[in-house]
Amino acid sequence: MPRYRDLTHTARPSDAPRVVDPKNPIRTTDPGALQMLEMIKERKIETVYDRVVAQQPQCTFGYNGICCRICIAGPCRVKKEEGPGSRGICGATAYTIVSRNLVRMIAGGAASHSEHARHVLHTAHSLVEGHAPDYEIKSPAKLIKLAEKLGIATLNRGNMEILKDVVELGYADFGRYQDRPLAFLDSFLTEGRRKKFHETNIMPRNIDGSITELIAQTAMGVDSDPVNIIFGGLKSSLADLGGEYIGTNLSDVLFGIPEPIVSEANLGVINPKMVNIAVHGHNPVLSEMVVAAARVMKEEAIKAGAEGVNIVGICCTGNELLMREGVYLATSSASQEMAILTGALDAMVVDIQCIYPAVQTVAECFHTKVITTEAIMKIPGAQHIAFDTTTAMEDAKKLISIAIKAFKNRDPKKVSIPSEKHKLVAGFSLEALTEIFSKICPERPISVLTDAILSGQLKGVCLMAGCNNLKRAQDESHLIVLKELVKNDVLVISTGCSSGAFAKFGLMSPLAVEAYAGDGLKAFFKTLEAANPQLATGLPLVFHMGSCVDNSRGADLAVAMANELGVDIPKVPFVASAPEAMHEKAVAIGSWCVSLGLPTHVGSLPPLEGSDLVYGIATQIAHDVFGGNFIFEVDPNIGAKKLLDALEYRTWKLSVHKKTAEKNNTPLAQGW
Amino acid sequence: MPRYRDLTHTARPSDAPRVVDPKNPIRTTDPGALQMLEMIKERKIETVYDRVVAQQPQCTFGYNGICCRICIAGPCRVKKEEGPGSRGICGATAYTIVSRNLVRMIAGGAASHSEHARHVLHTAHSLVEGHAPDYEIKSPAKLIKLAEKLGIATLNRGNMEILKDVVELGYADFGRYQDRPLAFLDSFLTEGRRKKFHETNIMPRNIDGSITELIAQTAMGVDSDPVNIIFGGLKSSLADLGGEYIGTNLSDVLFGIPEPIVSEANLGVINPKMVNIAVHGHNPVLSEMVVAAARVMKEEAIKAGAEGVNIVGICCTGNELLMREGVYLATSSASQEMAILTGALDAMVVDIQCIYPAVQTVAECFHTKVITTEAIMKIPGAQHIAFDTTTAMEDAKKLISIAIKAFKNRDPKKVSIPSEKHKLVAGFSLEALTEIFSKICPERPISVLTDAILSGQLKGVCLMAGCNNLKRAQDESHLIVLKELVKNDVLVISTGCSSGAFAKFGLMSPLAVEAYAGDGLKAFFKTLEAANPQLATGLPLVFHMGSCVDNSRGADLAVAMANELGVDIPKVPFVASAPEAMHEKAVAIGSWCVSLGLPTHVGSLPPLEGSDLVYGIATQIAHDVFGGNFIFEVDPNIGAKKLLDALEYRTWKLSVHKKTAEKNNTPLAQGW
Repeated sequence: MPRYRDLTHTARPSDAPRVVDPKNPIRTTDPGALQMLEMIKERKIETVYDRVVAQQPQCTFGYNGICCRICIAGPCRVKKEEGPGSRGICGATAYTIVSRNLVRMIAGGAASHSEHARHVLHTAHSLVEGHAPDYEIKSPAKLIKLAEKLGIATLNRGNMEILKDVVELGYADFGRYQDRPLAFLDSFLTEGRRKKFHETNIMPRNIDGSITELIAQTAMGVDSDPVNIIFGGLKSSLADLGGEYIGTNLSDVLFGIPEPIVSEANLGVINPKMVNIAVHGHNPVLSEMVVAAARVMKEEAIKAGAEGVNIVGICCTGNELLMREGVYLATSSASQEMAILTGALDAMVVDIQCIYPAVQTVAECFHTKVITTEAIMKIPGAQHIAFDTTTAMEDAKKLISIAIKAFKNRDPKKVSIPSEKHKLVAGFSLEALTEIFSKICPERPISVLTDAILSGQLKGVCLMAGCNNLKRAQDESHLIVLKELVKNDVLVISTGCSSGAFAKFGLMSPLAVEAYAGDGLKAFFKTLEAANPQLATGLPLVFHMGSCVDNSRGADLAVAMANELGVDIPKVPFVASAPEAMHEKAVAIGSWCVSLGLPTHVGSLPPLEGSDLVYGIATQIAHDVFGGNFIFEVDPNIGAKKLLDALEYRTWKLSVHKKTAEKNNTPLAQGW
Repeated sequence: MPRYRDLTHTARPSDAPRVVDPKNPIRTTDPGALQMLEMIKERKIETVYDRVVAQQPQCTFGYNGICCRICIAGPCRVKKEEGPGSRGICGATAYTIVSRNLVRMIAGGAASHSEHARHVLHTAHSLVEGHAPDYEIKSPAKLIKLAEKLGIATLNRGNMEILKDVVELGYADFGRYQDRPLAFLDSFLTEGRRKKFHETNIMPRNIDGSITELIAQTAMGVDSDPVNIIFGGLKSSLADLGGEYIGTNLSDVLFGIPEPIVSEANLGVINPKMVNIAVHGHNPVLSEMVVAAARVMKEEAIKAGAEGVNIVGICCTGNELLMREGVYLATSSASQEMAILTGALDAMVVDIQCIYPAVQTVAECFHTKVITTEAIMKIPGAQHIAFDTTTAMEDAKKLISIAIKAFKNRDPKKVSIPSEKHKLVAGFSLEALTEIFSKICPERPISVLTDAILSGQLKGVCLMAGCNNLKRAQDESHLIVLKELVKNDVLVISTGCSSGAFAKFGLMSPLAVEAYAGDGLKAFFKTLEAANPQLATGLPLVFHMGSCVDNSRGADLAVAMANELGVDIPKVPFVASAPEAMHEKAVAIGSWCVSLGLPTHVGSLPPLEGSDLVYGIATQIAHDVFGGNFIFEVDPNIGAKKLLDALEYRTWKLSVHKKTAEKNNTPLAQGW
């Protein structure tokens, strides 16, 4: 019998403190950030670590989700257990208010990923139309694979012709009114999930319309049924996944499929002798051009007295470039200001999402130029260079020139770069992993992974994702969860600022395997390495799968494992964890993870503790309906334990059914 | 010189109390509601009037817009003037937080109106496809006019063929990705506004995409520039107007163009001898069928012991049916629970928006059945009958049957219906008004109105719109503003719950003209009446233009007046007022009013007092850019005064320029 004791599904989170004690100076565990803070402690520059303390205590009505500001008769707050104060002015109770607030966060996440995807789609469209001379179809192989998946003919057709159809379908996915499912979602699912989403009426037919509908559903005086509201939210979360599929797949087509690549991470990658440009945000469309422009503008940097141009990444733009170009990762989200504090960052070029407005305030203490590039993202005081895909290279060169000019104004007295940096191996797209597995079993590469689970060598897979949330010390929860999982032979794939944390701490290096992996995981890696002599280095402790949009790669792996095993996703030993979730995108991602059937740990609670009913839907009813559920747990040690419980239960059940199936010579899923 | 002293644009609202004193029992001025409350005072049933008191004091962070819950690192509140507490954790300052919160309300409004419009569009589409046997093209004239406006060929084509093209264009307006403006907006504007919206980059190309983009723009770490954010908001507000145009125009095509019609309003319309069914919400698609079904099911009601079926309207569903069918208006938004308290309401059939979840709680004290009908609108405890346009009549009959069954359970001891009711004249679509004007000047009907303004007989036009907001006593602000305007010879058109207030108080009756209208307005009405002997009654003090979606009719009138005068809208003596704004829809409507160039009074402040900058953009910079501006004023007397100031200034300037133009024999707009 497994250790599974219902705990995973239903237990309230532990009483561990929700917020770092304001008196405790340790608000980040990132060694680079700590060094940086120490270096500038005399200068008293305000950073996020000060602001999070200044915001304490945070409003508990808002924290619990029981503050409603959806109309201007409010704000209303659920103040009592009973009586008129227990409802908003319109009569909305806690469960209505909590569920509305929650799903509007899903809408925010879906809108965010979708705008990102729309930009990539526009770029592909410009390419097809001949208006994007600086872009190309870098991976025709991915294009063909994608087109085939989408049911688009490829035989005897030119790549541009195929891409045109793919782009048309992508656009249709944003605005389709006909009663057909979102193609970029439907094509990637298991048969079981497809059926489940139709049955539960959450299969979206488009992205933008699903979001609009959800916003309308949650307006004042519309839906007050929390179950109906949450199902509306799940529909938008699937639209979010559809957007992610568009973003990831078309980025691979335009910029190449990531392959294992060696690089370095943490603030030490900032080079005092070079023009340092940080690219920050999420979208590779501009930043890929910045990398290309940096290569051709090396001479100009040298003329200005530098040794060259050093592009470093922050947040998911950093992850995109790290995955495909091996660009150094300077830091991750919560420590983004630290890169400027080095005094050696000449420009920070930003696109969209997770960019603190504070970067401009900090930059004003230095020579650093903050440059915004997208029409929907400006920062007062920062320079805005409108980036246009039709003049991409020219625009990118403009940005580099600004940085080179700024470099000349760099004040050497203000330069203090932490020494901290670590080697890492990234670039583990599903294609790259499959390639590695295929060296052992070319016919059914994913069976290498599923067999390792069925044999007991591995406990399962965990997708670690998401942000930093300073409700606890930066990165600490990511690290604790990871270490506990790998020690127990869980194969961990990671994205976003979870990847950022591991990279900065040196945990994305082959060296970390010896230190942290359990025996089963070590043996699994050894087998893979033995079969893959072409790899330049050993395999890392965690497989970096990309930016937060690339959580779609994680979904792809879950689908591939389900198909390999011949069961649906809820039966696959696959879990997800966002130990430091912060952005609305994380709420959207978590929600589709649950809909796909994954036990999904979240270490920083979304605002739902104010309603037992909504809490119960997320942690229990979701499991009954979709086979996945949220595991809310703020203590990362307990969170990891709950994830292991969930995996162990699934692995145990899988092995039991496998034995029966083998005995009766029936398919694995039969009689389950 | 006019009384205009910059006051209108820039003055902070007066210090009048924002919220009704909790100790003051007068939280509504509606005589029907007051009678009802008196009748049930022994029964201690909780209503909105109790809950608004229980919510006092309301959170000032939320009220001022300086609470941010856009990511789950928060809630963050701007707590100080300076230092780390003056910014959110990410560094967002008050102006960023306020503008983000504000435009997300616009997104909420645009989504709401658009879902309504989408439903009407789907119905038209079903009709075209032959799947909506109970619907018809009730106004081919409107269809032709609309098609011509949209540039769709009509010559020698069947109505269905034309409607098919109109529907296709409507769907394209929701999801268009090509760089072309929203057809249902672009076609209705003045040339000047079209140009302005292109110049300022706020012309939307679609509805759903604009909303998604705005949500993405305001996510954590994206736009922090309040001006850019607000322009994004204005783009969505224009998408809202586009949605309203789709909703209003297609409703007219399917259900007929409203014409002057006599009816009654306030709770006294509930008939103790009949099966009473309230239709509540906003959408005529279902409720028109309920009216039709009630006619054919009279016999069944008689069999059950009633004298027939009495359909009464609440809120904007009420307005839709009042405008086209003369259905009684039982009450408006804040007093919606009162209809149930009569004990004589057998069913309340609801569609979407402004439906208090509390109606179910109140209904449980009586025999009343609350029935939800739309997929995105359910209420726990209420019955849900999914309404489908393909089986519309059948579904509507089901609803009536439920009410007839409930009628048998009515407890006579609990019946207490206020005597209050008033005759009214409604149905003033722009077509109806034009028809009336055309009896004086068939060639240029609108000149009848503009000439009356130029001659000084009228001061101008005010569109009164919007909700109830119990921050002040229900309806009081609507009434005070109206009375002050008409006394000063302003022609008032009204929609939504502003119309509801006037109807309930007997101010939408010809009798009110004598009591309240100024001499100029009286004379104007007399001239119209003399030229229109076909009218069954005299003209009312206020012209009821429809539901809140029908604010598009108000926009149409402003456009028509601008075109008649040969100037753009910012020069037309036309203002708007929402004395008791409450819903996100009101924020969206107010924003497009300002973009169109209208001085727009709002009596219940949206959450923006927390940022002087955003306040200044709304009240001043908006005026510099668009010629329209918000007038925030909580004291209705001062609000009316500011509206009169704005009108007087425009009328004066118009007359000055008219003289110059006449002297020089040049067009009016020249040299302005």
